Amino acid sequence: MTAGPAARTATRPGAGTGRKPVLAVVGATGAVGTVLLEILSQRADVWGEIRLVASPRSAGRRLAVRGEETEVLALSEEVFDGVDVAMFDVPDEVSARWAPIATSKGTVVVDNSAAFRMDPDVPLVVPEVNAHAARVRPRGIVATPNCTTLSMIVAVAALHAEFGLGELVVSSYQAASGAGKAGVDTLRAQLAAVAGSSLGTQPGDVRRAVGDALGPFPAPLALNVVPWAGSLREAGWSSEELKIRDESRKILGLPDLRVAATCVRVPVITTHSLSVHARFENEVTVGQAHEILASAPGVVLVDDPAEGEFPTPADAVGTDPTWVGRVRRSMDDPKALDFFVCGDNLRKGAALNTAQVAECVAAELSTP
Amino acid sequence: MTAGPAARTATRPGAGTGRKPVLAVVGATGAVGTVLLEILSQRADVWGEIRLVASPRSAGRRLAVRGEETEVLALSEEVFDGVDVAMFDVPDEVSARWAPIATSKGTVVVDNSAAFRMDPDVPLVVPEVNAHAARVRPRGIVATPNCTTLSMIVAVAALHAEFGLGELVVSSYQAASGAGKAGVDTLRAQLAAVAGSSLGTQPGDVRRAVGDALGPFPAPLALNVVPWAGSLREAGWSSEELKIRDESRKILGLPDLRVAATCVRVPVITTHSLSVHARFENEVTVGQAHEILASAPGVVLVDDPAEGEFPTPADAVGTDPTWVGRVRRSMDDPKALDFFVCGDNLRKGAALNTAQVAECVAAELSTP
Repeated sequence: MTAGPAARTATRPGAGTGRKPVLAVVGATGAVGTVLLEILSQRADVWGEIRLVASPRSAGRRLAVRGEETEVLALSEEVFDGVDVAMFDVPDEVSARWAPIATSKGTVVVDNSAAFRMDPDVPLVVPEVNAHAARVRPRGIVATPNCTTLSMIVAVAALHAEFGLGELVVSSYQAASGAGKAGVDTLRAQLAAVAGSSLGTQPGDVRRAVGDALGPFPAPLALNVVPWAGSLREAGWSSEELKIRDESRKILGLPDLRVAATCVRVPVITTHSLSVHARFENEVTVGQAHEILASAPGVVLVDDPAEGEFPTPADAVGTDPTWVGRVRRSMDDPKALDFFVCGDNLRKGAALNTAQVAECVAAELSTP
Repeated sequence: MTAGPAARTATRPGAGTGRKPVLAVVGATGAVGTVLLEILSQRADVWGEIRLVASPRSAGRRLAVRGEETEVLALSEEVFDGVDVAMFDVPDEVSARWAPIATSKGTVVVDNSAAFRMDPDVPLVVPEVNAHAARVRPRGIVATPNCTTLSMIVAVAALHAEFGLGELVVSSYQAASGAGKAGVDTLRAQLAAVAGSSLGTQPGDVRRAVGDALGPFPAPLALNVVPWAGSLREAGWSSEELKIRDESRKILGLPDLRVAATCVRVPVITTHSLSVHARFENEVTVGQAHEILASAPGVVLVDDPAEGEFPTPADAVGTDPTWVGRVRRSMDDPKALDFFVCGDNLRKGAALNTAQVAECVAAELSTP
């Protein structure tokens, strides 16, 4: 065992002391946590000690971060002693219980669950869009959005800043890893079961081949698309669809934004895509939109269909930016743009945004 | 060889004579033609002789229709002698050249290509929506819509009849077979290449595994989605996207209908799906929409997400109707509905609609 966290210093990094803040990664062994450790190893090193935390089941495992093997600690009150910033990548109910415990010890929590996103005393932050909001955190918690919102919001916000957004109609093409490791394992097993067959041409033939091996999905995903993600909310809407609406409104500061979203799972391992119809207050041109997107931080514009250039998940996966292409002005509405975006749901959609927000907080803690 | 077509009677079926009309299937050996022969074998038998026609390359093959082996004839002027109705399921340029030759012999052509769809003297017909239009055909040609339009239009038209359609925003999830047999073969080969692997998590790993074997698609389709179908038209729009707009307007008789479509190919063998945001002139309720869709001819309503009931391509494939589910009233617009539709692109999307239109013409030819 390494020295227990209680043995560590509880001193906060004083303004200008130069001491690097201590980070805890809660949920270090999960699908997002795994990507987060990679990202922490790749980005500029702003952290002092990095403490890895997970459920007691995973405690004692050793994981590499910044090239060092580090032992995973079991989640406990003491694990937050001396921690300046804690990133939470855990289920909603775990965040709901443990984030207040961490903040009671003076730790700033950057939470990637849905537990606090709509709390008016918790900012919902995407650094390219509203980094300033992370500085005002009455509960000591900063939330980061759902992966589907994150896969498009940086591009949407850049266009909003110029044209003034009034309405979004979006349809998603969501990857299996949005449902965690079980989602990926399920899709891979289903693909192995149908590859080399002549399935997919008779009613229910894929369903029979896949059998009960649906994993976290309500229908087969191989050779199929499934118009459902999340849980049932009011009037037939899914939780995933309402997150896109509620989170976009909060991040953009547009409480009356009109949003209609349809969320569909597709047989892709990682990287969510969205088809976006965005209506603005002002007239738009493709030329202006291209200029905005080409210079927007965190956005890569790939838009030359004559040359086969547009974003696809297979190209965007494993990368940081939001990829945008197929930018068109609606033929019947000079105020509307249609475009297609791809974003790695485990990177910008989760781990990367969490890391970026935590770095904003670290910079603030270290600045006089 | 069977008796040449020139030897057959050229008599037209006189009103009330009771003689069943003679049918030619032009393009009998293609992907849609193959499904058409199945459909002709399953539906009420309104036809006398059925003559199978294809390119000289396929002539001489024997195919089963209505349980009888029938020799495929090479496309020629003579092949239309004595033919009352000819179904064309061939590339645009073949239709453009040969349909007028057929009509010059008195044959009514039901054409599934894009060659004549937007000709003001050619009706564009979906029997559940505008069967009456098939009776007025100045050029002797009736066109049937593109598969993507057909996969949604029956459901959209039923709602339009009640609420008055003003705007459509649609995103498609299009199957590989929309690109013909080459599309299906390509997807199956790509799936075999990636199944059992850990691909789909690193930039370009799927692209490298698939190599040049892209078939008719501009990017890998396995473990991917591709936001492109058809050819490039003005201002970044694809031909497939403009077809949805132009054809919906013509079929519904709404020349000013606002339509924005984004077409995306997904790794599904057969059955197109669309996410539809439809804005009407009048306020809507989900209850009314359910009533309309549950009783609309050619539509099956499957909408109980609490029980995992919604349409998916794997369930709709190989069936005739348009499957509709996920019906929601937009939270921010009491005049808009969001829903998800699936339709077999080779059946209702092509062969079935062609057969239905041809049957309308046959009934008219046989009626005093």
